[in-house]
Amino acid sequence: MLKIVKIGGNIVDNPAKLRAFLTDFAALEGDKILVHGGGKVATAISAALGIETTMIDGRRVTDRRTLEVVTMVYNGINKQIVSALQDLGCNAVGLCGADGRLVVSRRRPPEPVDYGFVGDPVSVNVTFAETLIKQGFTLVVAPITYDGRVGESGDSTGELLNTNADTVAGTIAVAMAGVVEIGVELVYCFEKQGVLTDVNDENSVIPLIDRARFAELKAAGTVHSGMLPKLENAFRALDGGVQKVVICAAENIAEPGYGGTTIAE
Amino acid sequence: MLKIVKIGGNIVDNPAKLRAFLTDFAALEGDKILVHGGGKVATAISAALGIETTMIDGRRVTDRRTLEVVTMVYNGINKQIVSALQDLGCNAVGLCGADGRLVVSRRRPPEPVDYGFVGDPVSVNVTFAETLIKQGFTLVVAPITYDGRVGESGDSTGELLNTNADTVAGTIAVAMAGVVEIGVELVYCFEKQGVLTDVNDENSVIPLIDRARFAELKAAGTVHSGMLPKLENAFRALDGGVQKVVICAAENIAEPGYGGTTIAE
Repeated sequence: MLKIVKIGGNIVDNPAKLRAFLTDFAALEGDKILVHGGGKVATAISAALGIETTMIDGRRVTDRRTLEVVTMVYNGINKQIVSALQDLGCNAVGLCGADGRLVVSRRRPPEPVDYGFVGDPVSVNVTFAETLIKQGFTLVVAPITYDGRVGESGDSTGELLNTNADTVAGTIAVAMAGVVEIGVELVYCFEKQGVLTDVNDENSVIPLIDRARFAELKAAGTVHSGMLPKLENAFRALDGGVQKVVICAAENIAEPGYGGTTIAE
Repeated sequence: MLKIVKIGGNIVDNPAKLRAFLTDFAALEGDKILVHGGGKVATAISAALGIETTMIDGRRVTDRRTLEVVTMVYNGINKQIVSALQDLGCNAVGLCGADGRLVVSRRRPPEPVDYGFVGDPVSVNVTFAETLIKQGFTLVVAPITYDGRVGESGDSTGELLNTNADTVAGTIAVAMAGVVEIGVELVYCFEKQGVLTDVNDENSVIPLIDRARFAELKAAGTVHSGMLPKLENAFRALDGGVQKVVICAAENIAEPGYGGTTIAE
């Protein structure tokens, strides 16, 4: 199966954890795509440049100068990941959504909240991705997409847009599921071991959740708050043709089943 | 012919000039690769982050933190160029030397002067470049290369290295000349209209320089100082199989012969 793995800022910000993860990732067999988040470096550099970071409901507002900073920082991180993977014998190619129109997005409407230069993905250039994968390349994708309106109307902006890395990974997974015969598996690495029956007990990982089990867990209140949208997204990916979704910790990526929770039909 | 065009910091630093250049570049017919320099943004960001910029003989010393900054800044510029080209209908893919091992380099020896993380290119993944070009993509290359020693010895560093953009362009041109049947043309854009008989007269462009003419110009002292190594590099590219080298101003790229000086056998 084609594996699409997403890592977040907690890994990207920690050089030792990142190196350990990339060592395991490089050793994973078969075709794979890595989508990475941004991390805190962008906030630190914005501050050094005197750019105020505005958060609304815990989400970053991306004004023009912030967009310039995140474009630099996320693509710089991307190249550091690519060179580390090359060093580990994994022939990586780093891309953002603008490259070959890999992930085209639309700027989020300014109502009810204007998050600025933030995009929601609308299409993936699967031919481009497939060509590179068939040649043995591992794609490394930065969460910057491209608002490409060429040929659609006169109001082409050609803007880069800051985009949620979870959404980028999910969108690529569903798009690739439509063209890849071997099937697609989507792996979300996060700070916990998986979906837990007891949020304070890392040993309470639920190994498998299907739709029936999800309904039970919701009814029992075991799954709530932040985990609920994660699981809903996972089932949406299954609806879109992805064969399975795994939620796990980055440090367990070398283990069977990634030591986490598999979400499948 | 495959066109390999290099632009420097004077264009990259000026949004209006860059947009005008990219509009002309996007309209150039046939296969093409754009190599861009870094510009002054890296120095400004280094200063904001409290990183001292050390110059030796007019060249930047790249310590570890400076390498991190130039990796971010140059690849950020790369993606801005890619999205602008996409907006202009040119299907661009932005890469640095680490991506697919496009340009592998060796760190420059620390003697007589230690410039830090600076590399000299040693190989180009022509298969990778050719595959993308054949699919209609325009490559946009940032001047960051990769010291890839995998499989050669135990001392793999896997480092990214800051690399002179002129050298990156020349190295890619010579490598591609070995595999591209249609021939390769290398275009260096700089701040003057071309090689001038009178350095103070922009209308004194010499349209064509072959080896005999070059010998004459050197003997007469018309070509000296900074222009001498530029022309010597151009003839080395011809020795390496490049069909012609052009030295011109970025704003003339839409003109016949790019309004500059052609160097050919």
